[in-house]
Amino acid sequence: MLIGKACRFGGRVRSCVVQPLACLFTASSNMAKSKFEYVRNFETDDTCLRNCYIVVRLDGRNFHKFAEQHKFIKPSDNRALGLMTRSARSVMEELEDVCIAYGQSDEFSFVFKRTSTWFKRRASKLMTHVASQFSSSYVFYWKEFFGEQPLLYPPGFDGRVVLYPSNRNLRDYLSWRQADCHINNLYNTVFWTLVQKGGLTTAQAEVRLKGTLAADKNEILFSEFDINYNTESALHRKGTTLIWEKVAFNCTTNIPH
Amino acid sequence: MLIGKACRFGGRVRSCVVQPLACLFTASSNMAKSKFEYVRNFETDDTCLRNCYIVVRLDGRNFHKFAEQHKFIKPSDNRALGLMTRSARSVMEELEDVCIAYGQSDEFSFVFKRTSTWFKRRASKLMTHVASQFSSSYVFYWKEFFGEQPLLYPPGFDGRVVLYPSNRNLRDYLSWRQADCHINNLYNTVFWTLVQKGGLTTAQAEVRLKGTLAADKNEILFSEFDINYNTESALHRKGTTLIWEKVAFNCTTNIPH
Amino acid sequence: MLIGKACRFGGRVRSCVVQPLACLFTASSNMAKSKFEYVRNFETDDTCLRNCYIVVRLDGRNFHKFAEQHKFIKPSDNRALGLMTRSARSVMEELEDVCIAYGQSDEFSFVFKRTSTWFKRRASKLMTHVASQFSSSYVFYWKEFFGEQPLLYPPGFDGRVVLYPSNRNLRDYLSWRQADCHINNLYNTVFWTLVQKGGLTTAQAEVRLKGTLAADKNEILFSEFDINYNTESALHRKGTTLIWEKVAFNCTTNIPH
Amino acid sequence: MLIGKACRFGGRVRSCVVQPLACLFTASSNMAKSKFEYVRNFETDDTCLRNCYIVVRLDGRNFHKFAEQHKFIKPSDNRALGLMTRSARSVMEELEDVCIAYGQSDEFSFVFKRTSTWFKRRASKLMTHVASQFSSSYVFYWKEFFGEQPLLYPPGFDGRVVLYPSNRNLRDYLSWRQADCHINNLYNTVFWTLVQKGGLTTAQAEVRLKGTLAADKNEILFSEFDINYNTESALHRKGTTLIWEKVAFNCTTNIPH
Repeated sequence: MLIGKACRFGGRVRSCVVQPLACLFTASSNMAKSKFEYVRNFETDDTCLRNCYIVVRLDGRNFHKFAEQHKFIKPSDNRALGLMTRSARSVMEELEDVCIAYGQSDEFSFVFKRTSTWFKRRASKLMTHVASQFSSSYVFYWKEFFGEQPLLYPPGFDGRVVLYPSNRNLRDYLSWRQADCHINNLYNTVFWTLVQKGGLTTAQAEVRLKGTLAADKNEILFSEFDINYNTESALHRKGTTLIWEKVAFNCTTNIPH
Repeated sequence: MLIGKACRFGGRVRSCVVQPLACLFTASSNMAKSKFEYVRNFETDDTCLRNCYIVVRLDGRNFHKFAEQHKFIKPSDNRALGLMTRSARSVMEELEDVCIAYGQSDEFSFVFKRTSTWFKRRASKLMTHVASQFSSSYVFYWKEFFGEQPLLYPPGFDGRVVLYPSNRNLRDYLSWRQADCHINNLYNTVFWTLVQKGGLTTAQAEVRLKGTLAADKNEILFSEFDINYNTESALHRKGTTLIWEKVAFNCTTNIPH
Repeated sequence: MLIGKACRFGGRVRSCVVQPLACLFTASSNMAKSKFEYVRNFETDDTCLRNCYIVVRLDGRNFHKFAEQHKFIKPSDNRALGLMTRSARSVMEELEDVCIAYGQSDEFSFVFKRTSTWFKRRASKLMTHVASQFSSSYVFYWKEFFGEQPLLYPPGFDGRVVLYPSNRNLRDYLSWRQADCHINNLYNTVFWTLVQKGGLTTAQAEVRLKGTLAADKNEILFSEFDINYNTESALHRKGTTLIWEKVAFNCTTNIPH
Repeated sequence: MLIGKACRFGGRVRSCVVQPLACLFTASSNMAKSKFEYVRNFETDDTCLRNCYIVVRLDGRNFHKFAEQHKFIKPSDNRALGLMTRSARSVMEELEDVCIAYGQSDEFSFVFKRTSTWFKRRASKLMTHVASQFSSSYVFYWKEFFGEQPLLYPPGFDGRVVLYPSNRNLRDYLSWRQADCHINNLYNTVFWTLVQKGGLTTAQAEVRLKGTLAADKNEILFSEFDINYNTESALHRKGTTLIWEKVAFNCTTNIPH
């Protein structure tokens, strides 16, 4: 059974195949299993320090290209942001102890509560579960946000774990990501306004914005395009925060989707 | 915008919502970003030791239940195994430096070559990329294997990283997983034959097999059901191994899918 | 040059010798050095999480035997405790950022302040520096406490690093060690009183104390030996705490040693 | 009891004192101990990967200054090298599983065998034991090498752990340290010959050697001072290697010290 097929990136002259199946051992499988089981001891412990917030941040892999191939609207595509948020919700609902999540652009951060003992706080378990659940959800819910527009290939997200020992540190982490959102969104808003409404090429827009400060960018939007940045979509300017809310017992029938 | 919805596990009386957006800082976003950027230093280095094989193993989360809900054929469902293998191929094609992969049941191991410097050998990057690409592929390729049978919800896989310093250790690791496959498959084959062909209940089959050795199980299959276990499907008995094969330049048009 | 000598533990029939010196490489040493320098990359980063207290705890190696061989007074030897404290002071004076130290019996804990960046917070550097400075000081200051009684061989201490994210956790750590001191000291006080004043053998004293609670031990001391445990030496009951104190400029001449 | 004393580095206007002893808890010590024992769970596992060589390298702390204060002979002091080797031998004899040690200048590397399970291969235990035993031995054996010249203060050594997965990697590590020895010793030999025999100041010698290659340095020694570097002390040129040697049962009485 050959399952090799041309890779998407056709240049590679190699193919991934199912190997003719060789049995790797000769003894009985029970004896073999106990003989080889010593390899388990090569696993190392990666328990997260107690009493710290555990943050797992995901980032889209090659999402610049992914966005172009799927014709995301510039500077921000509400369908894509909605799908990110829907996938993040899936993570919060399926995994234990995520108390808050914050997302913007192609990234999402999940905060596990300090006292969590989920999977014994093992970093590898936490981050792979988040990455896996988010990624399968992204494909699963694609249609809810992009309708008939097809998903061309399965996307990837990478993850990392960071620990924060104090409330202050965690708040500063979230502020840092939100400041990043602000900066990028302001830049992208002006950039694409210059291109889409101002008729500049992307190269010209880049030159125009080189060295400008936030005030300059606000001024360009206001004086040239009559846009008040502060009244632009909060979702774009500030990102998305997901929290848990206590709900009345029969609430689920009433909440609009 | 409320996105709260009843969780799949309806018992929870809480709902995951998008928070009213509060700005977490007051200064300019550029000043804020540099002020908060210190939180980056809380990330720790998790570089894998050089000159070791890096193995990432994925395991399905709650796949016993997943298999039941999706009516997987017992003891082994070729559609499910095919989808696992297809997803593993996606990982090998999209990620760098995976030289071999081995899968069985709801698990798959990916071996990165000793010399790999992909993502600077950072364990978190390697395992989350594998978990993410595998999971998104599993949903993406579901239809190719299950046709019109719907996927009910996005599945999850967890991952771990283990390092092996020598060829011998790596071979023993693969042998260990293959021995595990053998043991489980023999048990499952006899168990479900007793149930499906022998008319036993699952409880009766369990009692019947308690304490039996491999030879006993082979004997049950042969004497009672005229089944020679060694001629059963190699895919089920030995699992699936994926390797790279050099292919001629125009081969891709000829390889059957 | 043979430097082999009988080991202290004579049983070993092997000897540690200086090898006939072979040159391990043939190229020029500069070329060799750059060729081999890749091995530096096998070092891994072990930076301690920021904003946590770093505690290094040392424990005497085989100190039960060491105490016997050096005829330490039972239950507590003030010379030995004094030497421990003197060595701990040496650590605090020579190393950066130790804000508090706590010792009892043959152990000493050193707390580095949360904000310390000494040796980039690398755990290996911190704990080996502490272990080294303490050990060399122990031998160096031996005479100040034991006078002409000779030190028979160089003692060893092992160390470990533990991080504590909050003030509460740190206080609980110190309380834990102090509770350990209390429990051990009460036991040892009663045990040796029964032996030294009560005429019991050590085996008899052990039997006598089996299953007794703290109240029982206090009662034995009081009713049988007229000893009020609470007025015993605080140094023995509570251990030793070292802190930094701001001192006036010329104070050093006035402080008695 | 005040133990504060002027620090060696008199500038500091603070003093390390024994704190008035406060009891940190109020409950019974047994209850307290179990209540606080949770802090043990903050310890993390630092087991060294199996089947790898474990190298612990020690480096003298501020040994440039230490050498000056103790009037070490330039460029190499055989008493100091002998003391380093003696201390290394103490480490090999007291600790388990060190199969080879290599030293030069103020550093010493200890190689634990691949299969060692000493202290469960915990990195912190291995490196602190080595650092501690070496340091206490350095003070303990000082007199054997420096006679009546007093040791002015307890010296410090730091340590680190590095893992090597293959024989080749380990050999390259030792070659790297030996190449380092060669380079430094050649430089120091020429430098101090220029100063001691050539009458240059240290500043002039530095200028003279700037940019010279190994061949140039050899030439200076040979043509100006009639010194053939290759016949200089092998101990200085190549460092010291310690290995274990099987010895006959009664050998210990015959081996000269």
